[in-house]
Amino acid sequence: MTTTLIAIGGALHEEDPKIFREFIRLAGGEAARIVIFPQASGLAETGREYQTTLQNLGVREAPVVIEFRDRAGAASADALGAVREATGVFFSGGTQMRLSSLLGGTAMERELLAAYRRGAVVGGTSAGAAILSRVMIADGRRGATPRGRAAQICGGLGFTDQIIFDQHFRQRDRLGRLLYAIAMHPGYLGVGVDENTAAIIENETCLRVVGQNAVTVVDGRTISATNVAEISRSQPVAVSGATVHVLTEGCAFDLRSRQGEIPKLVLE
Amino acid sequence: MTTTLIAIGGALHEEDPKIFREFIRLAGGEAARIVIFPQASGLAETGREYQTTLQNLGVREAPVVIEFRDRAGAASADALGAVREATGVFFSGGTQMRLSSLLGGTAMERELLAAYRRGAVVGGTSAGAAILSRVMIADGRRGATPRGRAAQICGGLGFTDQIIFDQHFRQRDRLGRLLYAIAMHPGYLGVGVDENTAAIIENETCLRVVGQNAVTVVDGRTISATNVAEISRSQPVAVSGATVHVLTEGCAFDLRSRQGEIPKLVLE
Repeated sequence: MTTTLIAIGGALHEEDPKIFREFIRLAGGEAARIVIFPQASGLAETGREYQTTLQNLGVREAPVVIEFRDRAGAASADALGAVREATGVFFSGGTQMRLSSLLGGTAMERELLAAYRRGAVVGGTSAGAAILSRVMIADGRRGATPRGRAAQICGGLGFTDQIIFDQHFRQRDRLGRLLYAIAMHPGYLGVGVDENTAAIIENETCLRVVGQNAVTVVDGRTISATNVAEISRSQPVAVSGATVHVLTEGCAFDLRSRQGEIPKLVLE
Repeated sequence: MTTTLIAIGGALHEEDPKIFREFIRLAGGEAARIVIFPQASGLAETGREYQTTLQNLGVREAPVVIEFRDRAGAASADALGAVREATGVFFSGGTQMRLSSLLGGTAMERELLAAYRRGAVVGGTSAGAAILSRVMIADGRRGATPRGRAAQICGGLGFTDQIIFDQHFRQRDRLGRLLYAIAMHPGYLGVGVDENTAAIIENETCLRVVGQNAVTVVDGRTISATNVAEISRSQPVAVSGATVHVLTEGCAFDLRSRQGEIPKLVLE
């Protein structure tokens, strides 16, 4: 049994559905049974749009849009049953705190974690990527320099305890806020995913990159020193020794050894 | 084997050492082998002061002050060895982010978690209480009303995944920031510990109260609705249905059933 997380950096290109094809393949191909959580989004059509996209890409059984906006909905027997049968779970983009405040501590949260552990592929884009980790960035400011309070952190759904994700990563210049989040507790691995790009993590050990741009991995364990605890308000934060990997399609990262793997040039 | 966490709300009274006596008793009494982590404090004497206090209360073997202020120190063989032998671990007060940024992702963090799992009593006061959980309040503002960004969250040492602690709780009027932290992810149990008071949690199932004031437990699972994800900046946050328990010495709380236990009046 393999556990699989797919963190997508937002702004998926419809004309280049490579990431969705990979999601579908890992979830069982044409026979995939997919549930869609649109709760991060403030738009009424979001769930149906993903449903159509996935069906157009060959999923035979119509993906189930799990739609509710109050915490009582997270106890719906129909919704819980759909998750129990699913081979793939997809979270839309929007505001990640909508997901944590709606699902945190509910029967649905427990069902989602159980689905992940039994092998259902769990993926999301933008807010739907942020929510995948136990400690998540809820919001923050852009900029390459880490600054005090550059990121607002809160609890996510906790499919992984090892990673803090960020998204729209280079497009919104978020290296500073990810470095800040990692400096506060350097045990986490920062995974900043660019737009139209995905980090696919299997068994919480192997990360690989699919898509147009890059995944930036920030390894905090090598940080030798930081003054993050001494910073007030939005002053710049010093961080020394973080290891950064910029990985593009075909590259991988081993979460145990914390080594990147870049395909070697094959001589002709 | 019992796991034990002792979260103390700060401002321990020296003339009333009940909480320290309980810490020592649970760590093995006179024969306790205690290590002290003073890193949250900015005062050079903090470690030695706790060492003296504990010895004055009857601990035969001088507690070991584990003193280092750079991340390389967290790999010291002597320090790791002392933790490996310890029956009790104590974190001083100060700034909790000093602990997370110094210890996160180090060999010492892993050694501390191993000590906890094999039964060493792990306790701390103020910042040393905050650091005990996986998701912790690093900083924040006072006030009874939850407000956007009232609490800065970051990763703690993760002895428990279930709780978010707060300290100096009623003395610094922190119900608002704890409610805010819980509303963002209602799966966590908020445990606000007053000064000169401790929450003792055994096997992550039973919490009991020792000390002068109270422990306020905020159960987020019963939250029926919150607008926390829609709030910008420091606007007030609506939270409906949180269950609050105010527990004093002799009271307990069952983390599985989420029920408080208040001693019954014994009729004369």
